[in-house]
Amino acid sequence: MQIIQTVQEMQCFSESLRNEGKKIALVPTMGFLHEGHLSLMRMGKELADVLIVSIFVNPIQFGPDEDFEDYPRDFERDKKLIESVGAACIFAPEVREIYPEGFQTSVKVAHVTQNLCGISRPTHFDGVTTVVAKLFNATRPHCAIFGEKDFQQFVAIKRMCQDLNFGIEVIGAPIVREQDGLALSSRNTYLTAEERASAVSLSQALFEAKTMFDAGERDAVNLIELAHKIIRAEKVARIDYIKVCDIDTMEDVSVISRDAVMALAVHIGKARLIDNIVLKPAD
Amino acid sequence: MQIIQTVQEMQCFSESLRNEGKKIALVPTMGFLHEGHLSLMRMGKELADVLIVSIFVNPIQFGPDEDFEDYPRDFERDKKLIESVGAACIFAPEVREIYPEGFQTSVKVAHVTQNLCGISRPTHFDGVTTVVAKLFNATRPHCAIFGEKDFQQFVAIKRMCQDLNFGIEVIGAPIVREQDGLALSSRNTYLTAEERASAVSLSQALFEAKTMFDAGERDAVNLIELAHKIIRAEKVARIDYIKVCDIDTMEDVSVISRDAVMALAVHIGKARLIDNIVLKPAD
Repeated sequence: MQIIQTVQEMQCFSESLRNEGKKIALVPTMGFLHEGHLSLMRMGKELADVLIVSIFVNPIQFGPDEDFEDYPRDFERDKKLIESVGAACIFAPEVREIYPEGFQTSVKVAHVTQNLCGISRPTHFDGVTTVVAKLFNATRPHCAIFGEKDFQQFVAIKRMCQDLNFGIEVIGAPIVREQDGLALSSRNTYLTAEERASAVSLSQALFEAKTMFDAGERDAVNLIELAHKIIRAEKVARIDYIKVCDIDTMEDVSVISRDAVMALAVHIGKARLIDNIVLKPAD
Repeated sequence: MQIIQTVQEMQCFSESLRNEGKKIALVPTMGFLHEGHLSLMRMGKELADVLIVSIFVNPIQFGPDEDFEDYPRDFERDKKLIESVGAACIFAPEVREIYPEGFQTSVKVAHVTQNLCGISRPTHFDGVTTVVAKLFNATRPHCAIFGEKDFQQFVAIKRMCQDLNFGIEVIGAPIVREQDGLALSSRNTYLTAEERASAVSLSQALFEAKTMFDAGERDAVNLIELAHKIIRAEKVARIDYIKVCDIDTMEDVSVISRDAVMALAVHIGKARLIDNIVLKPAD
């Protein structure tokens, strides 16, 4: 397995694979890998001939008061995990390789980024779509796989890829959860034992709302109220948002008549955790 | 010569050429071709195995009061000219192919786009870099050639290409002029005979400033004042700007100690014309 640190080397590596007719899958990550990432990588291995995994903690998608510095990193551990899946290479550039002096270009997706995390993290998605555009150009994959835990991110990247004609298939992979339901996240490592116990309320709230939805409830306000109640019962939890949105536009919906996503963000201790569940009225 | 109207067909065409090991040059145009465009195409033919010429009058780079509707178009004439140069294909998509319903992504270069035309045309360069990113992804060339008449556009595209790691060589080609000095532009067609006579003042102003510069003048204010005087002598001319800028940052310079560009924009009748000249103190 190769470890590549420069864009130019990465492009040469990909170009020669493409010339051999190989299909390339990219799994972009910020490292500190967990079973969720591994599931994306295994999907990549199945869908393509060659798997590239990128590790880059992207400074421009963090706000000034966010956890860029503290974000957990463990390259040696990540390397072993990626090798175990059978990736052809890790693309792990330094920050100055991705943002050299004079860098001044951004890629912005205007609408689907406005709601949800776009409200509390106003520069976040511009940072995400900009770095993903760069990673796409550096690795030139045929497909790229993203976890649906970051649902709005997935929608924004799909939109960006389509709007800018990258010609890359953007694939979403289902959320991987702990046994008790907590969605896997590198940020779960921030939680104390007490906080970890409270964090299960996020998925519980979503599951109970889904049960209510499956029983026929179509009024978003009632689903949201139920979820609020469950999470508010945890003293250490501070809700950023709980919303029900159209699955394509990410706009709030009041009555669920087509596919929607119930998404939430909750601060627990030092961690800001997100989770979501899809609600399909036709099912 | 093929005429391709969809992004998907364009990408297939390019991909199969790349797989054959062919080097591709792109010349992006808005059509209504003149000798300036033809010089870019000939350069493309020399630099690469295959030349792709795109024709697309890009609505999002025009302001609401600008000439998108009136911009001259003559596809049949363009087609003959492009064929005469030996291009492999014309990529001529419809507006709805490039901007389908739901389109919402933009590519922005922050700094080099602020001065000069960025002041009088505040949304122009976002429109340019967005469409060029799309054209790059649609045609996947190895190099792309732009005329240096649109100097700031050339700098912005070079920056965008580098910042987003397109891996495409962006090449500037010298301005082509009429015998009397007027820079070729599709918009020259807007000029009446009287206006056409006055329009020569733009290049005259630049040439005379360059003569003054070559004689040792390094103070931008004096060069600008000379140019102003020459153009103001023409009653039909209304100056938008005349500036001397750093060739990399596009910021105003007062004393020319490294490579600079003297750039101007002047309204004459219905036309807004631009022109520029490079000033190199080391020459």
